Amino acid sequence: MPYSAVKRLLLGRPLSSREFEQQRLPKRLALGVFSTDAIASTAFATQEILVVLVPAAGMAALGYLVPISLLVVALLVIVVLSYRQTLYAYPNGGGSYIVSRENLGTNPSLVAAASLLVDYTLTVSVSVAAGVAAITSAIAALRGYEVELAVALIVLIALGNLRGVRESGRLFAPPTYVYVSMMTLLVVWGLFRTFTGDLQPLPVNHAQLAHFTGGETMLGGVTFFLLMRAFSSGAVALSGVEAISNGVQAFRKPESRNAAITLMWTGFILGSLFTGIAVLADQLRPTLSENETILSQMGHAVFGGGGPLYIVLQASTAAILTLSANTAYADFPRLSGIIAGDGFMPRQLANRGDRLVLSNGILVLSIAAGGLVIGFGASVSSLIPLFAVGLFTAFTLSQAGMVVHHWRLREPRWRAGLVINGVGALATTLVTAVILVSKFTEGAWIPTLVIPLLVLLFKGIHHHYATVDRAMRVEPGIKLPDIQHTVIVLVGPKVHIGVIQALAYARSLRPDFLHAVSVAYDADQANRIREQWERFDLDIPLDVVDSPYREINEPVLEYLDRIDARWSSDVVTVIIPELVVRHWWQQLLHNQTALWLKVRLLFREGTVVTSVPSHVLDEGKVKSPIPPTTAADRPAARSPT
Amino acid sequence: MPYSAVKRLLLGRPLSSREFEQQRLPKRLALGVFSTDAIASTAFATQEILVVLVPAAGMAALGYLVPISLLVVALLVIVVLSYRQTLYAYPNGGGSYIVSRENLGTNPSLVAAASLLVDYTLTVSVSVAAGVAAITSAIAALRGYEVELAVALIVLIALGNLRGVRESGRLFAPPTYVYVSMMTLLVVWGLFRTFTGDLQPLPVNHAQLAHFTGGETMLGGVTFFLLMRAFSSGAVALSGVEAISNGVQAFRKPESRNAAITLMWTGFILGSLFTGIAVLADQLRPTLSENETILSQMGHAVFGGGGPLYIVLQASTAAILTLSANTAYADFPRLSGIIAGDGFMPRQLANRGDRLVLSNGILVLSIAAGGLVIGFGASVSSLIPLFAVGLFTAFTLSQAGMVVHHWRLREPRWRAGLVINGVGALATTLVTAVILVSKFTEGAWIPTLVIPLLVLLFKGIHHHYATVDRAMRVEPGIKLPDIQHTVIVLVGPKVHIGVIQALAYARSLRPDFLHAVSVAYDADQANRIREQWERFDLDIPLDVVDSPYREINEPVLEYLDRIDARWSSDVVTVIIPELVVRHWWQQLLHNQTALWLKVRLLFREGTVVTSVPSHVLDEGKVKSPIPPTTAADRPAARSPT
Repeated sequence: MPYSAVKRLLLGRPLSSREFEQQRLPKRLALGVFSTDAIASTAFATQEILVVLVPAAGMAALGYLVPISLLVVALLVIVVLSYRQTLYAYPNGGGSYIVSRENLGTNPSLVAAASLLVDYTLTVSVSVAAGVAAITSAIAALRGYEVELAVALIVLIALGNLRGVRESGRLFAPPTYVYVSMMTLLVVWGLFRTFTGDLQPLPVNHAQLAHFTGGETMLGGVTFFLLMRAFSSGAVALSGVEAISNGVQAFRKPESRNAAITLMWTGFILGSLFTGIAVLADQLRPTLSENETILSQMGHAVFGGGGPLYIVLQASTAAILTLSANTAYADFPRLSGIIAGDGFMPRQLANRGDRLVLSNGILVLSIAAGGLVIGFGASVSSLIPLFAVGLFTAFTLSQAGMVVHHWRLREPRWRAGLVINGVGALATTLVTAVILVSKFTEGAWIPTLVIPLLVLLFKGIHHHYATVDRAMRVEPGIKLPDIQHTVIVLVGPKVHIGVIQALAYARSLRPDFLHAVSVAYDADQANRIREQWERFDLDIPLDVVDSPYREINEPVLEYLDRIDARWSSDVVTVIIPELVVRHWWQQLLHNQTALWLKVRLLFREGTVVTSVPSHVLDEGKVKSPIPPTTAADRPAARSPT
Repeated sequence: MPYSAVKRLLLGRPLSSREFEQQRLPKRLALGVFSTDAIASTAFATQEILVVLVPAAGMAALGYLVPISLLVVALLVIVVLSYRQTLYAYPNGGGSYIVSRENLGTNPSLVAAASLLVDYTLTVSVSVAAGVAAITSAIAALRGYEVELAVALIVLIALGNLRGVRESGRLFAPPTYVYVSMMTLLVVWGLFRTFTGDLQPLPVNHAQLAHFTGGETMLGGVTFFLLMRAFSSGAVALSGVEAISNGVQAFRKPESRNAAITLMWTGFILGSLFTGIAVLADQLRPTLSENETILSQMGHAVFGGGGPLYIVLQASTAAILTLSANTAYADFPRLSGIIAGDGFMPRQLANRGDRLVLSNGILVLSIAAGGLVIGFGASVSSLIPLFAVGLFTAFTLSQAGMVVHHWRLREPRWRAGLVINGVGALATTLVTAVILVSKFTEGAWIPTLVIPLLVLLFKGIHHHYATVDRAMRVEPGIKLPDIQHTVIVLVGPKVHIGVIQALAYARSLRPDFLHAVSVAYDADQANRIREQWERFDLDIPLDVVDSPYREINEPVLEYLDRIDARWSSDVVTVIIPELVVRHWWQQLLHNQTALWLKVRLLFREGTVVTSVPSHVLDEGKVKSPIPPTTAADRPAARSPT
């Protein structure tokens, strides 16, 4: 089949269930897969703090960078320590959804699920948008094509992920390591050069500054509310910290320990880089600009504009940002699969595709994230206000769930755990409130609306599945009923081999009642059909129904109602001769009438529709289930063995 | 059904075959339906002659208008007399397609068919675009929305036509009469006022003139080639003259005579108006303009700008132009139906919709014309070069066919007919050559490419139908064969009521061999499925097939191959339990696996697929063809009556 061939080429060969264990990741690759998102956020979080403050404070905004960043790092420490507890308590994987489900009940767990799905989607959009910004900072010629570039990158990442999880690790780990090295070099060398007086603060770009301050020189100054908004923007740096807790199963044994070590490393790298960038910016004083990120400006200054080190810096930034979306791609389908397994999302999301990844979830995520990128013009600053709501809602529910977990189970050292997660829950609750209040009108209202709607959708789907399952349940001891069986063969205006085959098939079912039926548009046609039927003398009675309005469906349905009224059989099987030709475009030339009738009959109770296909080959031969000769002419069938 | 209700509301009640005769048109309505296109072309043909000449000759181009127009009118007289012969020779309707088919053979008739279909499509696009130009000439605020307006008009006309032919006549005849009256008034009063010296030539609009001449004052002057191109543009005024010959069947009896009278009137009105407009333009000397048609400029001058007469002139011009597309809407589906009846187009185009019109053809025409309008930005001048090729090819084939007809049949006065049609054939052949040569690079290459491709498509479709019909043919005397019948029931991981019903249905078919089959992803699941089957003890053997790659289709297909190899039955019926729920969005939550398997099995030879539906109602009850109890528990079935 050519479809399979294309699928193989793009996605690689299928993997069996047994191969799944071998797909597990060593720590050094897991750091690449699960920490990319968290570490990559250092590339835009600092800038987004300035985006909030510069319009009100101008260049003075730089003075707030270090304190706000330290506050974010403090929050990071609390959250990392909290999640460390989760990794040990839920070695089989304990994302916010599972922890809430086990400890807080269904409704909170569904809120957590919806929050995480929204969060993963925004991770993809924001990371890709920021990655494109890193590219256009370095290559001015590409400015104006941000949306196209972002969509192309999403398609690329989606294909990478459809190929499967280990290949993803191999592909994505190197950029993470290069990025961490380059950023460390930037911060260390930059600070060294400013300390030795080798590097002076950058000149103010007055044109760009005026763009953000509206040209005002007397600025309103920074209010407490504005600081809250700036902190909310910086807090998105924590995005991705929870990814590991959802993916414990993907680590090599001992999973919990390996995951915990990876989590601590992630937190340490993220915290150091984020602080370092803030301190360096405080020294170098880059001007916020529409065209170039502050990181690119600092890279220019520290490494010397356009040199190889600057190019590697921008390239690895673009790479890690674009690919950080991969964290979401590792977790979104996994989480959807778990939710679908609980019956809250469509079952097909729970089917592992044949590359051991949850292909349907990957497709849904790509479409949603692509939509956001297009809708918000691939602008990081426009997407950021939507971003943090889902993230911190999930954090809060996870920590609250861990508090209940410790209280319920009282395992060794539960009191320490309770304190750690209690502090985590309080801190993240507070931050969620700050984000909602300070960003609501700027876009936070969107997830505030979408998350409850998703919860309602989950509950609706679950209710539907539960209703259907209850209705369909049977117990052992049930006997197969006997059936009164009526068979109706639908015959067109002309008797051809397909009709003969359908009639032979119908007779072989040995029904209690067997008639053929034909639809005529006028009396002439009805007579021609009846005469032809008599000539063929096939020993099956034909009913001709009248259709003055030249429709097929309604006369056939009325005929079936009359049959039902005459003869109370349990089931009516409508047999339709169907032509099957070699190519889909040939198929368009046939069976258009039958197609609509089949759809209509599917919804008629007590009715089974059977197409008896006749396969017409290109050379004009017919292959069909029913040979056109009698059984006596053929060799005797073998007995079943 | 809500679908029917909406259809009724938009399209009116269905009409029976008997009512078809009453739908025939009296002459005064037929003139509205079939002549609108021909007469309406007076609204743009004169302007399009100037579009060719002004860039080379400036205001001097006006001097060529009257001679070129008289040449076009001479051609018109030849073509009208030729077609008059056709109406009498083919009283059952004799378009170019039928005349060529009867006299010239299949290939020329298919060229005629393709030419006419292309021509009708362009008639719709050009008329609608010119109608929009008449509107934006009067209402400057609408300029810039030409494409949107044109598409909206096409949708409107399509809906009008789906309502049926007589309503179309009622709707469309009045604007034709108003337009003819207004144009006559414009020409007569305008010439009277210039003759009496009451009206002076219009001042030259130098800005617009410079737009067309490129600001050159030394112009190249008019070459013979350019005059050919200008004549080719003017010749589109003949579009629509052939419409009546395709639609003789729509006239009241005596059809031929009524059609011939209507044709002569059409020719007379068209010729007089076209000549009159050229003479008036020669006197008033309007400047070709991007923003306002020359007719609108002359209306302004003659009736006084913005007055009620000017407004009626523009409104009726817009109305007749927009609605002239209706001529094509009356003929395109009719011709498609005839071609489809001959097996050269898909059969569904031959189905009369339930408003006695050929609904599918209307849809195809609307989509094609809408595409052209969008693709060419609703510009008449861009569409004109594509227009005339199909038109004059069809004219030529029709006249050539009539020459053969006279020669072949030698009916009374055949010599006169032969001369008339011979002159017609020569003239139209010459014009076709002129059009092809003078307009080829400007767009005439498009129909030159599309027409042969359509002919190939027609032949491909015909070959396909012929092959299938030959393969399917049977003669009386054939006996229904006996069938060795294997039935396989596909069972999911859980036995539910749908499975019980499918098994009961399968057993009622009394097959020679009956097995159930289930697909397991791993050994655990396989064991669980087998244990469950033993508990239910249903007396039908179950085969469990292994699917390490978590696919359904391939393991099932391999299983069927093994069954076929073991047991040479004639037909394998695969029975699939299918859940049917109330709403389509609920349906998305079920049967996704079965859907793909059914598509795959359709193409497997010797295989019949049967879905046994279980209808789950909203309140959680199941309705199904098979009652879950045994026959003994139910009242006895009545006998067939």
